[in-house]
Amino acid sequence: MRIDVLTLFPEMFDGVFGASILGKARDKGIVSLNAVNFREYANNKHNTVDDYPYGGGGGMVLKAEPVFSAVEDLLRADGQLDEQPDRTAAAKAPRIILMCPQGQPFTQRKAEELAAEDRLIFICGHYEGYDERIREHLVTDELSIGDYVLTGGELPAMVMIDSVVRLLPGVLGNESSAVTDSYSTGLLEYPHYTRPASFRGMEVPEVLLSGHHSRIDQWRREQSMLRTLQRRPDLLDDAPLTDKERKWVRDQLMELKRKEAEQLSRKAIPGRGI
Amino acid sequence: MRIDVLTLFPEMFDGVFGASILGKARDKGIVSLNAVNFREYANNKHNTVDDYPYGGGGGMVLKAEPVFSAVEDLLRADGQLDEQPDRTAAAKAPRIILMCPQGQPFTQRKAEELAAEDRLIFICGHYEGYDERIREHLVTDELSIGDYVLTGGELPAMVMIDSVVRLLPGVLGNESSAVTDSYSTGLLEYPHYTRPASFRGMEVPEVLLSGHHSRIDQWRREQSMLRTLQRRPDLLDDAPLTDKERKWVRDQLMELKRKEAEQLSRKAIPGRGI
Repeated sequence: MRIDVLTLFPEMFDGVFGASILGKARDKGIVSLNAVNFREYANNKHNTVDDYPYGGGGGMVLKAEPVFSAVEDLLRADGQLDEQPDRTAAAKAPRIILMCPQGQPFTQRKAEELAAEDRLIFICGHYEGYDERIREHLVTDELSIGDYVLTGGELPAMVMIDSVVRLLPGVLGNESSAVTDSYSTGLLEYPHYTRPASFRGMEVPEVLLSGHHSRIDQWRREQSMLRTLQRRPDLLDDAPLTDKERKWVRDQLMELKRKEAEQLSRKAIPGRGI
Repeated sequence: MRIDVLTLFPEMFDGVFGASILGKARDKGIVSLNAVNFREYANNKHNTVDDYPYGGGGGMVLKAEPVFSAVEDLLRADGQLDEQPDRTAAAKAPRIILMCPQGQPFTQRKAEELAAEDRLIFICGHYEGYDERIREHLVTDELSIGDYVLTGGELPAMVMIDSVVRLLPGVLGNESSAVTDSYSTGLLEYPHYTRPASFRGMEVPEVLLSGHHSRIDQWRREQSMLRTLQRRPDLLDDAPLTDKERKWVRDQLMELKRKEAEQLSRKAIPGRGI
């Protein structure tokens, strides 16, 4: 897979593209990662890539031209664009993804979808808005990683690239994360413990030291259900539980509610709060 | 504000901590950003920070000890921990945030909450699970940036740090993003355009070139409502719209539905699909 990122801050990517799993995937030749400064495509003497908005108002707007030119240059170098560039040609190109707070939410499903492509181009703005023509006539996807405000699209691009590249064949070996498990069982993960068994008086649950595998499996399954109940009850509806397990979860929920009620009744001292 | 990040890949942070807004905030002395390799706190000859899970199963688990030691060392250097470290002392410490796919969702509200602190410590795992004792006895918050799988906690930590630091007084000047606007009006942003007015046959809407400010304001307001209707209709319930605007939005919605129905009826050729 080939991934290009258009950004005004290519140096932000050095550490992330070079380290750990992304770095290894790159070294193995599974992915080529390339950060391009689209300021180089500003065809004016001050290398300006943004300008005041038509119609007035605060903030600056990223100009269409340097972004179109940078994308087309990448595609041309790749033989994916004819000699005479036009926006129809760009539209036939690989996925061109705009980092955008108003975009579609990025999800694991979207990561899987992008991992099936040969070529991705990410466009990162930086506190400016984008000229609408970039959005309408150049990009194929507008994506957002979450409902929080960031200073630019660089970190969202890194997040998406990381989650896409780890899905490519050959990237994860036995490092394959425990995290993935929680997606496959439909439940959150059970608690993990490693040596020492006692650390400053904090003990590993006895069952895990017992060597009794069916008891360990049962404990882990129950802890998974319990944690899911406490943190992400919405996942339980779709989780593949047996009837017996559903009953167990209901019992746990009743027990939790009973404890909450008890705590509230203890607080109900006359004249001291509710 | 002082921010420390515990990670096995401190070099991943160099580019991000040095560039753009974070770099400037650091240069101005508004925030101190520090990536600490907690492998240095592994007290065994191979500098091992992870180990096999008790009870068997795949994957590795981050050991409690190096993470506790690294946090305590940071607090001790800061005078925030007594000579005799114990976990009670650590528990009195500043916010200690675990990057965790099962954590509470990170939101703009959480960013604002963290921006009010003096000191934040982020703990980043890397494909391993965490020894549960870190979770139970050391950290104050477990946070997740979204429902997708990443290779480690480093990128989520960068995302949170970016969104927190940009909220600190003095960090954003007039660079204050157009993006923020969409949060304050409760609607998505209207489209932006900048020069040239005509770019390869793609034109800026005439109203923006008219100089007629009340017409421009109305067009922008309508575009905001329209885009919100198309992309995030959930936001409309809480958006502060006038009765007239609500009626306008309803009319637009009817128009959209009418067009969709029309497209469906065109497809309904006998013998060719629905």
